Amino acid sequence: MDITRAGTKPSETAPADHFTGTVRVDRLFAAGAPARVTGAYVTFEPGARTNWHTHPLGQTLVITAGAGRVRRWGSPIEEVRPGDVVWFPPGEKHWHGAAPTTAMTHLAVSENLDGKTVDWMEKVSNADYGA
Amino acid sequence: MDITRAGTKPSETAPADHFTGTVRVDRLFAAGAPARVTGAYVTFEPGARTNWHTHPLGQTLVITAGAGRVRRWGSPIEEVRPGDVVWFPPGEKHWHGAAPTTAMTHLAVSENLDGKTVDWMEKVSNADYGA
Repeated sequence: MDITRAGTKPSETAPADHFTGTVRVDRLFAAGAPARVTGAYVTFEPGARTNWHTHPLGQTLVITAGAGRVRRWGSPIEEVRPGDVVWFPPGEKHWHGAAPTTAMTHLAVSENLDGKTVDWMEKVSNADYGA
Repeated sequence: MDITRAGTKPSETAPADHFTGTVRVDRLFAAGAPARVTGAYVTFEPGARTNWHTHPLGQTLVITAGAGRVRRWGSPIEEVRPGDVVWFPPGEKHWHGAAPTTAMTHLAVSENLDGKTVDWMEKVSNADYGA
Protein backbone atom coordinates (compact mmCIF):
# COMPACT_ATOMS: atom_id res chain seq x y z
CA MET A 1 0.00 0.00 0.00
CA ASP A 2 1.40 3.35 -1.02
CA ILE A 3 -0.22 6.68 -0.07
CA THR A 4 0.64 9.89 -1.94
CA ARG A 5 -0.57 12.77 0.18
CA ALA A 6 -2.40 15.76 -1.31
CA GLY A 7 -0.03 18.64 -1.94
CA THR A 8 3.17 16.60 -2.23
CA LYS A 9 3.34 16.48 -6.04
CA PRO A 10 4.10 19.72 -7.91
CA SER A 11 1.66 20.81 -10.61
CA GLU A 12 3.08 20.79 -14.13
CA THR A 13 2.53 23.04 -17.14
CA ALA A 14 1.49 21.10 -20.24
CA PRO A 15 4.04 21.47 -23.08
CA ALA A 16 3.27 24.12 -25.74
CA ASP A 17 4.25 21.59 -28.42
CA HIS A 18 1.13 19.54 -27.72
CA PHE A 19 -1.35 22.11 -26.38
CA THR A 20 -2.78 25.52 -27.28
CA GLY A 21 -3.20 27.97 -24.42
CA THR A 22 -2.52 27.48 -20.72
CA VAL A 23 -2.99 23.95 -19.42
CA ARG A 24 -2.01 22.54 -16.02
CA VAL A 25 -1.42 18.85 -15.34
CA ASP A 26 -1.69 17.39 -11.83
CA ARG A 27 -0.46 13.82 -12.06
CA LEU A 28 -2.29 11.42 -9.76
CA PHE A 29 -1.03 7.91 -10.43
CA ALA A 30 0.90 5.66 -12.80
CA ALA A 31 0.64 1.99 -11.90
CA GLY A 32 3.67 -0.19 -12.64
CA ALA A 33 3.57 -3.50 -14.56
CA PRO A 34 1.66 -5.76 -14.67
CA ALA A 35 -0.84 -2.90 -14.23
CA ARG A 36 -0.69 -0.13 -16.83
CA VAL A 37 -3.20 2.60 -15.91
CA THR A 38 -2.27 6.28 -15.47
CA GLY A 39 -4.38 9.17 -14.22
CA ALA A 40 -4.14 12.95 -13.95
CA TYR A 41 -6.31 16.00 -13.45
CA VAL A 42 -5.90 18.37 -16.41
CA THR A 43 -7.08 21.97 -16.18
CA PHE A 44 -7.58 24.06 -19.34
CA GLU A 45 -7.86 27.84 -19.08
CA PRO A 46 -10.60 29.38 -21.29
CA GLY A 47 -9.90 28.63 -24.97
CA ALA A 48 -7.11 26.16 -24.21
CA ARG A 49 -7.10 22.69 -25.79
CA THR A 50 -4.95 19.70 -26.63
CA ASN A 51 -3.52 19.09 -30.08
CA TRP A 52 -5.23 16.45 -32.16
CA HIS A 53 -4.04 13.08 -30.84
CA THR A 54 -4.78 9.38 -30.39
CA HIS A 55 -4.27 6.90 -27.54
CA PRO A 56 -2.99 3.36 -28.21
CA LEU A 57 -5.37 1.86 -25.61
CA GLY A 58 -7.98 4.64 -25.54
CA GLN A 59 -8.72 7.29 -22.94
CA THR A 60 -11.52 8.10 -20.50
CA LEU A 61 -12.26 11.65 -19.33
CA VAL A 62 -14.41 12.44 -16.29
CA ILE A 63 -15.29 16.13 -16.37
CA THR A 64 -14.90 17.50 -12.83
CA ALA A 65 -15.29 21.28 -13.18
CA GLY A 66 -16.23 24.06 -15.57
CA ALA A 67 -17.34 23.68 -19.17
CA GLY A 68 -15.49 22.11 -22.08
CA ARG A 69 -15.49 20.84 -25.61
CA VAL A 70 -14.50 17.53 -27.18
CA ARG A 71 -14.34 16.53 -30.83
CA ARG A 72 -13.39 13.49 -32.79
CA TRP A 73 -12.05 13.76 -36.33
CA GLY A 74 -14.90 14.23 -38.82
CA SER A 75 -17.63 14.85 -36.24
CA PRO A 76 -19.16 17.99 -34.71
CA ILE A 77 -17.93 19.60 -31.51
CA GLU A 78 -19.68 18.31 -28.36
CA GLU A 79 -20.01 20.38 -25.19
CA VAL A 80 -19.25 18.66 -21.88
CA ARG A 81 -20.10 19.49 -18.28
CA PRO A 82 -19.13 18.15 -14.82
CA GLY A 83 -20.12 14.52 -14.36
CA ASP A 84 -20.03 13.74 -18.08
CA VAL A 85 -17.76 10.82 -18.98
CA VAL A 86 -16.09 10.64 -22.41
CA TRP A 87 -14.50 7.53 -23.91
CA PHE A 88 -12.15 7.70 -26.89
CA PRO A 89 -11.42 4.22 -28.29
CA PRO A 90 -7.87 3.17 -29.21
CA GLY A 91 -6.59 5.05 -32.27
CA GLU A 92 -9.49 7.54 -32.54
CA LYS A 93 -8.17 10.98 -33.52
CA HIS A 94 -9.65 13.68 -31.25
CA TRP A 95 -9.04 16.71 -29.05
CA HIS A 96 -10.42 18.09 -25.77
CA GLY A 97 -10.32 21.45 -24.07
CA ALA A 98 -12.07 24.28 -22.28
CA ALA A 99 -15.00 26.32 -23.53
CA PRO A 100 -13.98 29.64 -25.15
CA THR A 101 -14.77 31.72 -22.05
CA THR A 102 -14.89 29.10 -19.25
CA ALA A 103 -12.13 26.88 -17.88
CA MET A 104 -12.51 23.09 -17.65
CA THR A 105 -10.94 20.40 -15.48
CA HIS A 106 -11.13 16.70 -16.22
CA LEU A 107 -9.70 13.54 -14.80
CA ALA A 108 -7.91 11.73 -17.63
CA VAL A 109 -7.36 7.98 -17.37
CA SER A 110 -5.44 5.96 -19.93
CA GLU A 111 -3.44 2.76 -20.18
CA ASN A 112 0.08 2.57 -21.51
CA LEU A 113 1.06 0.21 -24.32
CA ASP A 114 4.78 -0.50 -24.24
CA GLY A 115 5.20 2.61 -22.09
CA LYS A 116 3.25 4.93 -24.40
CA THR A 117 -0.17 6.49 -23.62
CA VAL A 118 -0.54 9.06 -26.42
CA ASP A 119 0.48 9.88 -30.02
CA TRP A 120 0.51 13.63 -30.63
CA MET A 121 -0.52 15.27 -33.92
CA GLU A 122 -1.13 18.75 -35.34
CA LYS A 123 -2.49 21.82 -33.50
CA VAL A 124 -6.26 22.33 -33.29
CA SER A 125 -6.91 25.37 -35.47
CA ASN A 126 -9.31 28.12 -34.39
CA ALA A 127 -11.72 26.78 -37.04
CA ASP A 128 -11.54 23.21 -35.71
CA TYR A 129 -12.00 24.59 -32.19
CA GLY A 130 -15.10 26.48 -33.27
CA ALA A 131 -13.77 29.85 -32.16
CA MET B 1 -16.16 8.86 -29.08
CA ASP B 2 -18.85 7.99 -26.59
CA ILE B 3 -20.25 10.51 -24.08
CA THR B 4 -22.18 9.33 -21.00
CA ARG B 5 -24.03 12.34 -19.64
CA ALA B 6 -24.15 13.12 -15.90
CA GLY B 7 -27.33 11.81 -14.33
CA THR B 8 -28.06 9.08 -16.89
CA LYS B 9 -26.64 6.15 -14.88
CA PRO B 10 -28.52 5.05 -11.75
CA SER B 11 -26.56 4.91 -8.49
CA GLU B 12 -26.16 1.42 -7.05
CA THR B 13 -26.10 0.11 -3.48
CA ALA B 14 -22.99 -1.94 -2.73
CA PRO B 15 -23.85 -5.56 -1.83
CA ALA B 16 -24.03 -6.39 1.91
CA ASP B 17 -22.04 -9.58 1.22
CA HIS B 18 -18.92 -7.57 0.50
CA PHE B 19 -19.41 -4.38 2.54
CA THR B 20 -20.30 -3.32 6.09
CA GLY B 21 -22.69 -0.38 6.43
CA THR B 22 -24.22 1.77 3.72
CA VAL B 23 -22.14 2.19 0.58
CA ARG B 24 -23.18 3.71 -2.76
CA VAL B 25 -21.47 2.97 -6.07
CA ASP B 26 -21.68 5.38 -9.02
CA ARG B 27 -20.12 3.58 -11.97
CA LEU B 28 -18.24 5.87 -14.34
CA PHE B 29 -16.56 3.74 -17.00
CA ALA B 30 -15.51 0.25 -18.03
CA ALA B 31 -13.33 0.21 -21.13
CA GLY B 32 -13.67 -2.78 -23.43
CA ALA B 33 -10.77 -4.91 -24.72
CA PRO B 34 -7.98 -4.31 -25.61
CA ALA B 35 -8.31 -1.70 -22.80
CA ARG B 36 -9.21 -3.04 -19.36
CA VAL B 37 -9.65 -0.13 -16.94
CA THR B 38 -12.78 0.46 -14.86
CA GLY B 39 -13.70 3.40 -12.65
CA ALA B 40 -16.39 4.34 -10.14
CA TYR B 41 -17.10 6.80 -7.37
CA VAL B 42 -17.76 4.94 -4.11
CA THR B 43 -19.36 6.73 -1.16
CA PHE B 44 -19.17 5.22 2.34
CA GLU B 45 -21.51 6.48 5.08
CA PRO B 46 -19.82 6.97 8.48
CA GLY B 47 -18.43 3.66 9.77
CA ALA B 48 -19.00 1.84 6.46
CA ARG B 49 -16.17 -0.13 4.83
CA THR B 50 -15.38 -2.82 2.30
CA ASN B 51 -14.62 -6.42 3.27
CA TRP B 52 -10.99 -7.45 3.17
CA HIS B 53 -10.12 -8.05 -0.47
CA THR B 54 -7.44 -8.11 -3.16
CA HIS B 55 -7.27 -6.95 -6.79
CA PRO B 56 -5.61 -9.08 -9.48
CA LEU B 57 -4.05 -6.00 -11.16
CA GLY B 58 -4.10 -3.65 -8.16
CA GLN B 59 -6.29 -0.64 -7.44
CA THR B 60 -5.87 3.12 -7.17
CA LEU B 61 -8.09 5.30 -4.95
CA VAL B 62 -8.33 9.08 -5.29
CA ILE B 63 -10.07 10.46 -2.22
CA THR B 64 -12.54 13.12 -3.37
CA ALA B 65 -14.58 14.01 -0.26
CA GLY B 66 -14.82 13.51 3.49
CA ALA B 67 -12.46 11.50 5.69
CA GLY B 68 -11.60 7.82 5.49
CA ARG B 69 -9.45 4.92 6.55
CA VAL B 70 -7.40 2.37 4.65
CA ARG B 71 -5.48 -0.62 5.94
CA ARG B 72 -3.41 -3.40 4.47
CA TRP B 73 -3.14 -6.76 6.16
CA GLY B 74 -0.58 -6.66 8.97
CA SER B 75 -0.14 -2.87 9.02
CA PRO B 76 -1.72 -0.05 11.02
CA ILE B 77 -4.80 1.89 9.91
CA GLU B 78 -4.00 5.01 7.85
CA GLU B 79 -6.30 8.02 7.68
CA VAL B 80 -6.95 9.56 4.26
CA ARG B 81 -8.28 12.93 3.14
CA PRO B 82 -9.39 14.53 -0.16
CA GLY B 83 -6.57 14.65 -2.69
CA ASP B 84 -4.72 11.68 -1.19
CA VAL B 85 -4.02 8.87 -3.68
CA VAL B 86 -3.71 5.27 -2.48
CA TRP B 87 -2.21 2.41 -4.51
CA PHE B 88 -2.75 -1.23 -3.58
CA PRO B 89 -0.48 -3.53 -5.62
CA PRO B 90 -1.83 -6.74 -7.20
CA GLY B 91 -2.73 -9.35 -4.58
CA GLU B 92 -2.30 -7.11 -1.53
CA LYS B 93 -5.01 -7.86 1.06
CA HIS B 94 -6.61 -4.63 2.30
CA TRP B 95 -9.80 -2.69 3.04
CA HIS B 96 -11.02 0.93 2.71
CA GLY B 97 -13.87 2.89 4.17
CA ALA B 98 -15.20 6.00 5.88
CA ALA B 99 -14.08 7.42 9.19
CA PRO B 100 -16.27 6.39 12.14
CA THR B 101 -18.25 9.64 12.20
CA THR B 102 -17.56 11.15 8.75
CA ALA B 103 -18.49 9.86 5.30
CA MET B 104 -15.90 9.39 2.55
CA THR B 105 -16.04 9.32 -1.24
CA HIS B 106 -13.26 8.04 -3.45
CA LEU B 107 -12.74 7.42 -7.11
CA ALA B 108 -11.69 3.77 -7.51
CA VAL B 109 -9.75 2.73 -10.62
CA SER B 110 -8.76 -0.85 -11.35
CA GLU B 111 -7.97 -3.07 -14.31
CA ASN B 112 -9.71 -6.35 -15.04
CA LEU B 113 -7.75 -9.57 -15.53
CA ASP B 114 -9.83 -12.07 -17.52
CA GLY B 115 -12.92 -10.03 -16.61
CA LYS B 116 -12.22 -9.91 -12.86
CA THR B 117 -11.23 -6.80 -10.87
CA VAL B 118 -11.57 -8.03 -7.25
CA ASP B 119 -11.41 -11.10 -5.00
CA TRP B 120 -13.60 -10.67 -1.93
CA MET B 121 -12.71 -12.03 1.53
CA GLU B 122 -14.01 -11.86 5.11
CA LYS B 123 -15.76 -8.91 6.81
CA VAL B 124 -13.66 -6.22 8.51
CA SER B 125 -14.34 -6.68 12.23
CA ASN B 126 -14.90 -3.71 14.51
CA ALA B 127 -11.44 -4.42 15.97
CA ASP B 128 -9.78 -4.40 12.53
CA TYR B 129 -11.69 -1.20 11.70
CA GLY B 130 -10.42 0.42 14.90
CA ALA B 131 -13.91 1.17 16.20
